[in-house]
Amino acid sequence: MAPTVSFLLIIFLSTITFISSESVLRLPSENDLSGRLHQVQEDDDLYCDSWRLTVETNNIGPWKSVPARCVNFVAEYMGGERYSSDSKVIGEVSSAFAKSVEVNGDGRDAWVFDIDETLLSNVPYYENNGFGKEIFNETSFDDWVNLAEAPALPASLSLYNELLELGFRVFLLTGRSELQRNATETNLLLAGYNKWERLILRGSSDQGKPAIVYKSEKRAELVEGGYRIHGSSGDQWSDLWGHAVASRSFKLPNPMYYIP
Amino acid sequence: MAPTVSFLLIIFLSTITFISSESVLRLPSENDLSGRLHQVQEDDDLYCDSWRLTVETNNIGPWKSVPARCVNFVAEYMGGERYSSDSKVIGEVSSAFAKSVEVNGDGRDAWVFDIDETLLSNVPYYENNGFGKEIFNETSFDDWVNLAEAPALPASLSLYNELLELGFRVFLLTGRSELQRNATETNLLLAGYNKWERLILRGSSDQGKPAIVYKSEKRAELVEGGYRIHGSSGDQWSDLWGHAVASRSFKLPNPMYYIP
Repeated sequence: MAPTVSFLLIIFLSTITFISSESVLRLPSENDLSGRLHQVQEDDDLYCDSWRLTVETNNIGPWKSVPARCVNFVAEYMGGERYSSDSKVIGEVSSAFAKSVEVNGDGRDAWVFDIDETLLSNVPYYENNGFGKEIFNETSFDDWVNLAEAPALPASLSLYNELLELGFRVFLLTGRSELQRNATETNLLLAGYNKWERLILRGSSDQGKPAIVYKSEKRAELVEGGYRIHGSSGDQWSDLWGHAVASRSFKLPNPMYYIP
Repeated sequence: MAPTVSFLLIIFLSTITFISSESVLRLPSENDLSGRLHQVQEDDDLYCDSWRLTVETNNIGPWKSVPARCVNFVAEYMGGERYSSDSKVIGEVSSAFAKSVEVNGDGRDAWVFDIDETLLSNVPYYENNGFGKEIFNETSFDDWVNLAEAPALPASLSLYNELLELGFRVFLLTGRSELQRNATETNLLLAGYNKWERLILRGSSDQGKPAIVYKSEKRAELVEGGYRIHGSSGDQWSDLWGHAVASRSFKLPNPMYYIP
């Protein structure tokens, strides 16, 4: 019976080792702390996911910075599969709508895109700048813009090319300044966007206006020019609301910052 | 040594039993199937969470029923802590806004609430009716309404009472019919809502109007009556958009159905 006993003992001991990572005895205080930290993490994730929903629906109204407890959540969201999936599904519903539009041959069927966090992603910049925790620093962001290195948001690039194929005229309407025209064009081309009807940036008379006013005025000019704005894509409600709004608006996710 | 061996054997066997649910040997085809099912589940959860975001932001536009692959997701969301947390955080941002309003003593500071999935929850009904998978059945829903058993949405009840304390006049604006006035009043009182300025239901001249038109018209009447509509809470964009809109609108979650 001795070899059987040894065999069983070996199996028993290896089983103990196998499950030890879960069953190791901890001091009550340790267990307590680890449990509490785990609970805080779960509470934060649940709260921050709800906070993000209030941002995306504009329930929250104007806000200045990501709550401290949600900075890690936002970083994980933006760098992970959920941001990617959310953008993709929004691209799909935008595309489904675009296909339902009867595009006329007169070249007046328009789609308006915002640029930052819509066509181009500034995640590489925000990764190094606190992911929305810090209040927007215009100088450092302008330096990043001038590098012209922002990658395309894949779902938007795909929608963009599809719209061109469907015969839409694409307008790019951005809060960036006229001074950034060259850097912006260079960046768009490098990221794969290579055809647009007009790139509209803030001129000197647009400085200081809230985005929602500036963008509404520019859309109104398009409408006066005979364009039918079927769709509009932007990561801020100020890209989409106001007047001369598109028939359908598509709000892309952005829990990093808010523009009025 | 015999008692020791028996002791070890007992421990060994009970350990095997304890871990057997995880470590049981599976045939390769079974492992494969389980892995694939797990992957499908993860893909569905990711997709359905993104689908839900397109619903809550109104990106999706009009929709008829919950996609088949998302019915379980919606059931879990509505019955779980996320719906509860989402409603609570929306209640908190609504409350923060309400507190920032300077309530005048003239009794004209108003807040408009929708009823279904806003003040009252019909989750007990939808639990038994496919959770948004089935197309809306008016007869069976009316039977449920007549029972007057819908519970309060806790976050809304709390906001409601706070608004009354702050001095707001509360208006209830619902797509329910005048024929359901008694059942609706009974239900509201049973659920804990016990004071309102006016309960507005669809009269015969309102039948057949899209909710967004009907609700805008009724809000416009309040504005003509001298009321300042500071806030409006509803689970449908058609509760909130249109004309005579509130200064701030609060979109409550509802991935179960869409009302134009």
